[in-house]
Amino acid sequence: MGESAQDHASEVKGGPVKANPYNWPYNGNLKPDNTALVVIDMQVDFCSPGGYVDKMGYDLKAMRNPIEPIQNILKVMRAEQYPVFYTREGHRPDLSDLPPNKRWRSQNIGAGIGDPGPCGRILVRGEPGWDVIPELAPLPGEIIIDKPGKGSFYSTDLELILNMRGVKNLILVGVTTDVCVHTTMRDANDRGLECLLVADCTGATDIGNHESALKMITMQGGVFGAYTDSKQLLRGLKMTTESTS
Amino acid sequence: MGESAQDHASEVKGGPVKANPYNWPYNGNLKPDNTALVVIDMQVDFCSPGGYVDKMGYDLKAMRNPIEPIQNILKVMRAEQYPVFYTREGHRPDLSDLPPNKRWRSQNIGAGIGDPGPCGRILVRGEPGWDVIPELAPLPGEIIIDKPGKGSFYSTDLELILNMRGVKNLILVGVTTDVCVHTTMRDANDRGLECLLVADCTGATDIGNHESALKMITMQGGVFGAYTDSKQLLRGLKMTTESTS
Amino acid sequence: MGESAQDHASEVKGGPVKANPYNWPYNGNLKPDNTALVVIDMQVDFCSPGGYVDKMGYDLKAMRNPIEPIQNILKVMRAEQYPVFYTREGHRPDLSDLPPNKRWRSQNIGAGIGDPGPCGRILVRGEPGWDVIPELAPLPGEIIIDKPGKGSFYSTDLELILNMRGVKNLILVGVTTDVCVHTTMRDANDRGLECLLVADCTGATDIGNHESALKMITMQGGVFGAYTDSKQLLRGLKMTTESTS
Amino acid sequence: MGESAQDHASEVKGGPVKANPYNWPYNGNLKPDNTALVVIDMQVDFCSPGGYVDKMGYDLKAMRNPIEPIQNILKVMRAEQYPVFYTREGHRPDLSDLPPNKRWRSQNIGAGIGDPGPCGRILVRGEPGWDVIPELAPLPGEIIIDKPGKGSFYSTDLELILNMRGVKNLILVGVTTDVCVHTTMRDANDRGLECLLVADCTGATDIGNHESALKMITMQGGVFGAYTDSKQLLRGLKMTTESTS
Repeated sequence: MGESAQDHASEVKGGPVKANPYNWPYNGNLKPDNTALVVIDMQVDFCSPGGYVDKMGYDLKAMRNPIEPIQNILKVMRAEQYPVFYTREGHRPDLSDLPPNKRWRSQNIGAGIGDPGPCGRILVRGEPGWDVIPELAPLPGEIIIDKPGKGSFYSTDLELILNMRGVKNLILVGVTTDVCVHTTMRDANDRGLECLLVADCTGATDIGNHESALKMITMQGGVFGAYTDSKQLLRGLKMTTESTS
Repeated sequence: MGESAQDHASEVKGGPVKANPYNWPYNGNLKPDNTALVVIDMQVDFCSPGGYVDKMGYDLKAMRNPIEPIQNILKVMRAEQYPVFYTREGHRPDLSDLPPNKRWRSQNIGAGIGDPGPCGRILVRGEPGWDVIPELAPLPGEIIIDKPGKGSFYSTDLELILNMRGVKNLILVGVTTDVCVHTTMRDANDRGLECLLVADCTGATDIGNHESALKMITMQGGVFGAYTDSKQLLRGLKMTTESTS
Repeated sequence: MGESAQDHASEVKGGPVKANPYNWPYNGNLKPDNTALVVIDMQVDFCSPGGYVDKMGYDLKAMRNPIEPIQNILKVMRAEQYPVFYTREGHRPDLSDLPPNKRWRSQNIGAGIGDPGPCGRILVRGEPGWDVIPELAPLPGEIIIDKPGKGSFYSTDLELILNMRGVKNLILVGVTTDVCVHTTMRDANDRGLECLLVADCTGATDIGNHESALKMITMQGGVFGAYTDSKQLLRGLKMTTESTS
Repeated sequence: MGESAQDHASEVKGGPVKANPYNWPYNGNLKPDNTALVVIDMQVDFCSPGGYVDKMGYDLKAMRNPIEPIQNILKVMRAEQYPVFYTREGHRPDLSDLPPNKRWRSQNIGAGIGDPGPCGRILVRGEPGWDVIPELAPLPGEIIIDKPGKGSFYSTDLELILNMRGVKNLILVGVTTDVCVHTTMRDANDRGLECLLVADCTGATDIGNHESALKMITMQGGVFGAYTDSKQLLRGLKMTTESTS
């Protein structure tokens, strides 16, 4: 990276949440009316023994580390009445919405989508493995988006619901950092939504990918938005609450 | 990454193009009727002195390295009558399609979208900086997709045209690896398109991000498709041509 | 309408199903591999006493007339293994996907979406009124699309599934002719899908609107496709089956 | 229609513009910040001798009657600084975005899209016939949406731009009432946009279709929004201006 890019990025600008490469949100406008938390794919299949990620042979620890910091954020944001969204990756039981290349790849790696496993059929809606993990169970009234892909906007009603709610800012947590969280962040960003990824509330199947996914956000002055950690987010939310009460 | 994931990924499966983590395309069905080359954002603003990337202070070399290998691929794929698509990132002159956070970030880093620069207004349609670089100029009949975002599907007619042509496979080249190329690959992949990124025909503003963008593709058995280099692609295309002639 | 338009439209062209303004499909390519039946919104709320349409004060007869001809088509198309899709209009129980103007209008007319009624909460997913009527109950393996709007493509996975199946032609039946059937036909047509509306398998809250919805299809040489009746459709399907067996 | 439906519809509710079946907009919130005028397809190909509609043999009078009332609306809405959008139906010169069935139908009726005609190649971008008619020429800074289909949202950046502007209400004029105006109204309505069609500012290739297109709007309490005429619209806009100045 050139010198001038680094210099610009290090200036303190933006909103109440200390973040990288700018303090978030860019326009300082952060409140329950315009900001939602999105908890991405914290499902048994991604986070628990016997699920899809476990069957592929990845270490589950990186998937489970975000649980506690997400709980901390949920507690505060629920209390402050920020809307909470959940997403679940999964396919129809007949697999009619499963692209054949996605199926083929999962079979190659020993975790065929739709095949039976310890948590039921892998990544299939209605199976035990497809549920959100009990540690992060959605409350009644929280919105669950079922998606067939990695992004949360494609083939779902997420955009409609965000528009109806007047949501302008998204706080993104969940797994995996570089796949579903990042794809959702990119697609939201293209729609003009202002996005914040909370690093310790996310995890990836490879630690290098996790770190690079964070760094990618900071290019071009925040090409997909910004990232922070849960401590800074909670501090920023607290400042916001106090200043408006 | 666990052992079993690595073992599965190293098995030789798939199509005529040697690639990582599987030989591409997965089903071996590669021909001009179902496969398109997509040249992403090889514009003056991204690849030439005085443009957007240069003004942000990044090294242009990584943007220009892909030019020659893309020329090699274009030569062969045009001769074999594969359809060629180009994308250009850019905004309407009135900036009505420019999200305010995207503008703010670009201003912060010293390269405000819509502001005047040595190549005209930055990232604005119709300006000199927005053109595809002359080294890779599209031929008459090649399709250009103008997009306001990082992904090539959002707010464009790309999906319609691909469907009308019966395209099932996309070969992706251009810049930057981790931003517009990757976002397009992710959005194409969610739609069931089978994608191949050609590593030496892409470049990023940060070499670590470039390498991580490649590695991310290989997770989960090829979560977004596969990647290769131009030498392997040309070898695979040649095999395909010979076997069908 | 001018003379020359009428003359052109009356020429016999197109596929095996006699239809207006051309015989369908335009390219003669009609088979279970590329053609799907879509049964639109034949739900208790639209077709049965106590439901949404009944509460608005419309005559249910027009909603129920299509039941028998749809049964006839289902019998034949299921036997020939054409894929069958169903759509259901309905909203999330928290009404997060219900535009406020849609709610306001429904309240004005005395049938507030989300309000309790004899068939449960009106147009809410999971309620008795939201089910497909038992006379046309989907079989296991038939695909149900839940949609928040009048069109079947917006905020749904219909396009993904049609693309995965290679569907090019849609045969449209259900209610109401001028609202959900027509909006779906228009949106499918814009995507290049070849559409046929089966007139006696549809119905509207106003007979004049029903007839005009048919006529609109015939403008500009078939601006949204073509329409026929169930007798002609069954004849065309039979010809197709015999010629390929 | 049943009695109760009619009774409800005739009650006076809603906003400052007298309309049918309710006064528009439903929530009374009408101002340049949240409301746009959309002038649909008032192109030479639809409205002038030698264009697409003329070649199909339809009477051009119905296409030209809306010109004067649209001019009246434009004058007032421009003065009050309401944003003005234009749409143009048209295809890429290589016809890559033209579905083959659409082409086939247009050829059948003697006005093949892409074929040469007195106004240039029919419905092709860049040709004389594709231009907006000079009587209604867009002013600099007014937004033009080029669309390949009948709806204005599919394969375009319209939704992005409306969201960036905070537009919630659309006032629709242009041609043809039952095809492009209605499809756009339906697709906007599904997205929660509050729509008003101005009847004398629209026209159809068949007068019966025009009238039915209006009536369809009024079903279900205003299933796609409401319709009015230019006199009532101007009166409502005037009331709005006076009450806020």
